Amino acid sequence: MSVRIAILIFDGLTALDAIGPYEVLSRLPEAELSFVAKEPGLKRTDTGALGISADLAITEIPDPEVVLVPGGEGNRPLLGDDEVLAWLRIAHESSTWTTSVCTGALVLGAAGILGGKRATTHWAYLGRLRELGAEPVAERVVEDGKIITGAGVSAGIDMALTLAARISGEKVAEAIQLGIEYDPAPPFDTGSPQKAPSELVELIRSQEG
Amino acid sequence: MSVRIAILIFDGLTALDAIGPYEVLSRLPEAELSFVAKEPGLKRTDTGALGISADLAITEIPDPEVVLVPGGEGNRPLLGDDEVLAWLRIAHESSTWTTSVCTGALVLGAAGILGGKRATTHWAYLGRLRELGAEPVAERVVEDGKIITGAGVSAGIDMALTLAARISGEKVAEAIQLGIEYDPAPPFDTGSPQKAPSELVELIRSQEG
Repeated sequence: MSVRIAILIFDGLTALDAIGPYEVLSRLPEAELSFVAKEPGLKRTDTGALGISADLAITEIPDPEVVLVPGGEGNRPLLGDDEVLAWLRIAHESSTWTTSVCTGALVLGAAGILGGKRATTHWAYLGRLRELGAEPVAERVVEDGKIITGAGVSAGIDMALTLAARISGEKVAEAIQLGIEYDPAPPFDTGSPQKAPSELVELIRSQEG
Repeated sequence: MSVRIAILIFDGLTALDAIGPYEVLSRLPEAELSFVAKEPGLKRTDTGALGISADLAITEIPDPEVVLVPGGEGNRPLLGDDEVLAWLRIAHESSTWTTSVCTGALVLGAAGILGGKRATTHWAYLGRLRELGAEPVAERVVEDGKIITGAGVSAGIDMALTLAARISGEKVAEAIQLGIEYDPAPPFDTGSPQKAPSELVELIRSQEG
């Protein structure tokens, strides 16, 4: 039995938000993973330096078992895009898991999926998440029923390993973690606003939002 | 002053090997980052589920300041590809940094760049690295002069943050780490062969190589 996974992409996405989870979830034995977009074709990332192919239109995969929405400044137009939001709402009705990484949660929120739900996003956007009806939680991976949200960018890897265990069991997720040698050793201790010096936090906050 | 960064891609690459470092290095203020290939165009990843665009031919960027070679089973043909190996050799002569992630190190080795150098690769390939003349080191990020190699797949993020600090200083690298919220919290403790149960290690070893 296959598990159809749809990762929604768009111009201006943050690549690692999508590719971190892709690298984990595509290794599930049952995975049938597709990158989808409103219009298929090449999407440029937020830096402009990378093009990623959306192989399918969202209309071609109305009922994936797993939906994943990544972040990036390019997803802000989706917050008012009726076609994309309707696709998400309908996909969420039949999905097994509805997920996001980073500001992808804002799109889930705009679709009305996060009302009253515990959810997370990039640390600089937790306030926006509340405006969209969610209960923001400053944790790396947040589960509320079938909704799993990850914090900023690199948190998609942790989110996806958590999700992999839910889909295929812990043994499979543990093997994938070993396969991608995910034994992180960050060279600095500045990966969260709680740990980083306040001037760095203000710098990033001024660039985001 | 710009820092031209060339990430070599090919059909059958492991996406995260390339995209983890891309996400870090493209955020350097001086970065001018390009995905390059022997033939430009769309490259499919090792799972087949993702297409990534190589915007430039290697011949268009003979002298990047930073060269990065990712891994993936699709790079094995490059070990005998005279054109690619010659490009790497010449680029390495003038590069500021020559780098790899995962089995990308095998390609550097085949180009004769790693002779007698300390280097790392995916844990299942350390023996192959020795056959190519390197001194394999089971560490996550290994520096030997201007050569920086990262271990398997996800280690590219740690490698790139280390490299970012060398290029632009620690403050910039620390800000990038905060921007991508890289405060990893792996859900399992199986990310290296030292930590994972031996049956998982044997399972992955049988799939690789």
